[in-house]
Amino acid sequence: MALIVQKFGGSSVGSIERIENVARKAIQSREAGHDVVVVVSAMKGETDRLLKLAHEAAQTASPRPRELDLLLSTGETVTITLLTMVLERLGAPARCYTGAQVRILTDSAFSKARIQDIDDEIIREDLQLGRIVVVAGFQGVDENGSITTLGRGGSDTTAVALAAALGADECQIYTDVDGVYTTDPRVVPTARRLDRITFEEMLELASLGSKVLQIRAVEFAGKYRVPLRVLSSFEEGPGTLITMEGENMPQGSMEEPLIAGIAFNRDEAKLTVIGVPDKPGIAARILGPIAKANIEVDMIVQNISNEGMTDFTFTVHKNEYERAMEILRDQAKEMGAREVFGDTGIVKLSLVGVGMRSHAGVASRMFDALADEGINIQMISTSEIKISVVIDEKYLELGTRALHKAFELDDEEGRTVRVEGN
Amino acid sequence: MALIVQKFGGSSVGSIERIENVARKAIQSREAGHDVVVVVSAMKGETDRLLKLAHEAAQTASPRPRELDLLLSTGETVTITLLTMVLERLGAPARCYTGAQVRILTDSAFSKARIQDIDDEIIREDLQLGRIVVVAGFQGVDENGSITTLGRGGSDTTAVALAAALGADECQIYTDVDGVYTTDPRVVPTARRLDRITFEEMLELASLGSKVLQIRAVEFAGKYRVPLRVLSSFEEGPGTLITMEGENMPQGSMEEPLIAGIAFNRDEAKLTVIGVPDKPGIAARILGPIAKANIEVDMIVQNISNEGMTDFTFTVHKNEYERAMEILRDQAKEMGAREVFGDTGIVKLSLVGVGMRSHAGVASRMFDALADEGINIQMISTSEIKISVVIDEKYLELGTRALHKAFELDDEEGRTVRVEGN
Repeated sequence: MALIVQKFGGSSVGSIERIENVARKAIQSREAGHDVVVVVSAMKGETDRLLKLAHEAAQTASPRPRELDLLLSTGETVTITLLTMVLERLGAPARCYTGAQVRILTDSAFSKARIQDIDDEIIREDLQLGRIVVVAGFQGVDENGSITTLGRGGSDTTAVALAAALGADECQIYTDVDGVYTTDPRVVPTARRLDRITFEEMLELASLGSKVLQIRAVEFAGKYRVPLRVLSSFEEGPGTLITMEGENMPQGSMEEPLIAGIAFNRDEAKLTVIGVPDKPGIAARILGPIAKANIEVDMIVQNISNEGMTDFTFTVHKNEYERAMEILRDQAKEMGAREVFGDTGIVKLSLVGVGMRSHAGVASRMFDALADEGINIQMISTSEIKISVVIDEKYLELGTRALHKAFELDDEEGRTVRVEGN
Repeated sequence: MALIVQKFGGSSVGSIERIENVARKAIQSREAGHDVVVVVSAMKGETDRLLKLAHEAAQTASPRPRELDLLLSTGETVTITLLTMVLERLGAPARCYTGAQVRILTDSAFSKARIQDIDDEIIREDLQLGRIVVVAGFQGVDENGSITTLGRGGSDTTAVALAAALGADECQIYTDVDGVYTTDPRVVPTARRLDRITFEEMLELASLGSKVLQIRAVEFAGKYRVPLRVLSSFEEGPGTLITMEGENMPQGSMEEPLIAGIAFNRDEAKLTVIGVPDKPGIAARILGPIAKANIEVDMIVQNISNEGMTDFTFTVHKNEYERAMEILRDQAKEMGAREVFGDTGIVKLSLVGVGMRSHAGVASRMFDALADEGINIQMISTSEIKISVVIDEKYLELGTRALHKAFELDDEEGRTVRVEGN
């Protein structure tokens, strides 16, 4: 007998019929002998309805956060009561709690509160009485008794935090996809569902994973070593287990797979300063004003200096490109740099896998595969479990497919993944 | 400077526009130098929407009460956040609380909980900071932290209970009528708005007053001596003050008015047993089984016995008539009564006024006025401040108008009251 926390998002509880589906999954786990805690989001569309009312009332884009959080928290409160009613109707004893009732204590950073402590007492009591416990996701309460919310995707965080507090054996995140894939199946039709992936790989696959799981929840799960499983609300299947490196490997498999998957990001733009006098501190002088303007920088590459001059390239989100370029021009002038230019027509491809740590040759195999397709690499950056390259955006599909094939990630049976509308 | 509790019902907060109207009334009172606490209900239609979801989820007419109360409580929670946002937008510092946040402690009788205690600390602190305090009506919290609701019209009760706990100078109940009238203006177009009325009169005028104020709130206000004022949300005007007998009488007026108003009730039906052997305990033998079946009895009349036989008549709600008749027939047979019959075509008229206590001749003036119109009186029952008669329902309008005129209740300037759709 295990203790399982199950989380269902807004589209999984979007109607009474779908809530019945959720109830059946919870009961199925209960009947398999497990203790079950279910975390749910607001019904699809409800948060938007409440936001609209708030904007109408406050007539500003940012209504007062304390009241907004209390308002939005009603969305999940509605869902937990309905799910509990359905569970009881289907014969399963159940009990529901708001975040404040559990006592999910958070700080007072309304709309992006952080969980500080969870009181697990009432949940444990209910589980001992054989009840399925239903908890409102996304919400907590601060020390003053004000209701807080955890921000976008906060229900995932609630589920993981509850799993950690209860020492759950697994935290199951039900979504509208059936697991984590080696890459986006819309780009590579033979993309394969991964049976397991490590927390680190999942974090590095953010640009794929963010559609499936809130990064914050993955970090949280990693920190507290809560095994996470991503499954489909609508189809049967084992999903993808996200776990610690080396844990729960299938029998007979002695090694981590080399590569877990390929991520890509079309949202970046590239900025370059050419002919910067190469003195100590130039990187800080270039990036300081960018950071001060709260613009996040992703990749940074500096070439070796040539005749006392060097080139410097970095990437930012496309939305920040114009602002970053303006700042960079001023800065370049001040530094006596020769030229500044930028490019928004790029894409970043990343190869991710804990296995690459102990395998030489991953990088060269990657560069070979791209060269074979005639794809020019503009920037390279590496970390322990990731190699990223920037290429022309027109090569996104071609490059991703080439790498998927080169690292033998294609579905072994050559199946093409059916992709639901997103 | 006074402390005023203002309560606005569902139709007064039915849209953002109407909530703005509520905010303006609160700000007006604040600017007049008063401390203001506002109690609001769920937006019109919201409770019905939530009930529909609950019935769909539970697939029973009575969903589990703990979850239902939590579900319904979200309705008022939405309103308090929106009102607070509007108040702040209009420049008035404000703060809102759910019943649980104030700590309106109730028993655990879900859907009809009774208030046991109110913690006034945070409200007092906010008032001292110059804030308008907005509180969710209708809801509380029990000792276990479960959310409870106070039942239909519970927001009135919340307002009065808060006013009592805070020692408020006045509890203002805003409704869609502009006060309490001498009788229903749809029946008597010259009905007059009362400037004041006593708690006792208001209670006896229940059948009129229930459309304006929850009886339970009036009882509560009377018990804790909280002056209540009924006003219109949509029109300016002083409304009707409900207060203790003799308090706050206008200068120059030495006496209570003779009659406060005329109530009527079309919802009763009459049941009669004829020729019951007159022995001690017959009333108990007749009414015992009725009470056991949870049927509420209103008027009871027993005529003096004649040749060892007596007649016995009582009234019940029309909805209970069939059941009551069935029980009565069985009982009459057992008792050897001669005959049983009933009548659903009746109406009860009641003359109400604390002034009648010290004035002889009210009853005879009432009977004369009805006789003058050829109206036959079927039953009479009296209390200290009320005389009720049962007459044929076809005489409802004629009888009410005759009494209204006989007791000089008509509007002195002969105005006809404009009645909004109800």
